[in-house]
Amino acid sequence: MIKNFEQLLKEAAKSPGKKIAVAAAADLDVLLAVENARKQGIAGAILVGSEAEIKKIAADNNIDIGNYEVIHSDDNAESALTAAKQVAAGNASVMMKGLVDTYVFLKAILDKDIGLRTGKLTTQTTVFEIPGRDEFIFVTDPAITTAPDLAQKKDIIENACFVAHKLGYKNPMVAPVCAVEKFNPKMQATVDAQELHEMNERGEIKGCYVSGPVSLDVAVSKEAASHKGYKDKIGGSANILLMDDIESGNVLYKSIVYLAGGVGAGVVMGAKCPIVLTSRADSDVSKFYSIATAMLISE
Amino acid sequence: MIKNFEQLLKEAAKSPGKKIAVAAAADLDVLLAVENARKQGIAGAILVGSEAEIKKIAADNNIDIGNYEVIHSDDNAESALTAAKQVAAGNASVMMKGLVDTYVFLKAILDKDIGLRTGKLTTQTTVFEIPGRDEFIFVTDPAITTAPDLAQKKDIIENACFVAHKLGYKNPMVAPVCAVEKFNPKMQATVDAQELHEMNERGEIKGCYVSGPVSLDVAVSKEAASHKGYKDKIGGSANILLMDDIESGNVLYKSIVYLAGGVGAGVVMGAKCPIVLTSRADSDVSKFYSIATAMLISE
Repeated sequence: MIKNFEQLLKEAAKSPGKKIAVAAAADLDVLLAVENARKQGIAGAILVGSEAEIKKIAADNNIDIGNYEVIHSDDNAESALTAAKQVAAGNASVMMKGLVDTYVFLKAILDKDIGLRTGKLTTQTTVFEIPGRDEFIFVTDPAITTAPDLAQKKDIIENACFVAHKLGYKNPMVAPVCAVEKFNPKMQATVDAQELHEMNERGEIKGCYVSGPVSLDVAVSKEAASHKGYKDKIGGSANILLMDDIESGNVLYKSIVYLAGGVGAGVVMGAKCPIVLTSRADSDVSKFYSIATAMLISE
Repeated sequence: MIKNFEQLLKEAAKSPGKKIAVAAAADLDVLLAVENARKQGIAGAILVGSEAEIKKIAADNNIDIGNYEVIHSDDNAESALTAAKQVAAGNASVMMKGLVDTYVFLKAILDKDIGLRTGKLTTQTTVFEIPGRDEFIFVTDPAITTAPDLAQKKDIIENACFVAHKLGYKNPMVAPVCAVEKFNPKMQATVDAQELHEMNERGEIKGCYVSGPVSLDVAVSKEAASHKGYKDKIGGSANILLMDDIESGNVLYKSIVYLAGGVGAGVVMGAKCPIVLTSRADSDVSKFYSIATAMLISE
């Protein structure tokens, strides 16, 4: 089981030679992350975007652009489509978002002609290393699915489990995070949580344990679970935090990074390749870890 | 301006002699918090609940119950009503929730015959001290209002501003926290945020500055705001974080406490007195700070 990014980087470096296709790569943090991945033997890269801007940023920051294939594009949407085509053609095994809106980027992945779509929902799982915790925590979906319904939450769980399994979390505990632990028909999050628990019990969601409604404190803190008299085995031991919607997911993501000092690696699953889709405000370290995680779980 | 709980405790101790009425007080954390407040000259207390249990907990923990008025009640709902009556009668200036469900507790405050209701929405503001930050951050509403509409969000802001003003934050910056910074008609949180900004510009929400849609990273981090090219003056400087619903609010609350090592003091405004309503899983320190904050802002 991989418990932190130090271990993850070592594992990712065991399969060199794979490449990442970057859409709208003219961004310092993106290029630093890609260069870091190249130097540590984790991945090569095909950079799509404004060639002049990419070369200028590289030159200003001692990045030897000769180590990369650069495909010029002045337009962000075109840049995303071009990167997707590189993956579809087998030239790269992971796709990464640079300085382009998420919506525009995802549109390229879901483009019918290019062929990266699978029919499954594409959803993000972010792998977090948080000071004071012994293992990764997986948060999903903090970035893509606005207000998932029950069927979409099932897809989100399965995509997150795929990531967790690849990192050695064999039967991860999934906490559908709600504001309360009690089923309350007036709070849809608790209704969905109860349903997901029952679907898991009936074998309709496999490879994990899904609890009923549970609040974040009880999911991550044994003390809080004990004080509240919460009996389910997930108390304090959740591996995957399933968030009710993008608002709560995004808030958790941002508070872990900006208030708790955590570092996250985001990976989008559901297409034919893992996708690296970090926020424009994320650091180069976070982007680098995302690349490493995506590379590690790519086939 | 009061920037942390050390300063807040000193201010709160300047007006001794006021009392807090505790509903369902037979809880160790609650009693430790109340005893702490009494010893530091911040508040006396009227304890409502199982007399035998309260006395046993006190005896087991070196709390001299002779310093308190105890009113016996075996029933949680009755206990909440009795505590509310003590405030209505002028015997206490703050009401506090002990080991009783939030719903049952609030029902007593909203009881028409007792007279604590004002017609305003009762909403929670939590005052947070977070490691690495220089000032308090106010989060609202992480505990009561399930899915506030626009009018309710206005009430929530005004209640939070009341608390912030009392702590010396004269014209607080209010960030309606969304998953994105851009107005998006498909994301109700951003629609509401834009409306609230315009209401503030038209003078319909006073005593504060309300930005448009802003994500948590941009609200609390100048670096994130800068990297995203976010121009509004609230970037990195938000005082009050207005959460879209109880799910995102509760997640932020819990992640600050359980992942970021912060300490929060919850105060509910909107009734005739400040109300202390902490989660059953909150620590005695958090409950003590809540008492001090409620006492400080009570008239």
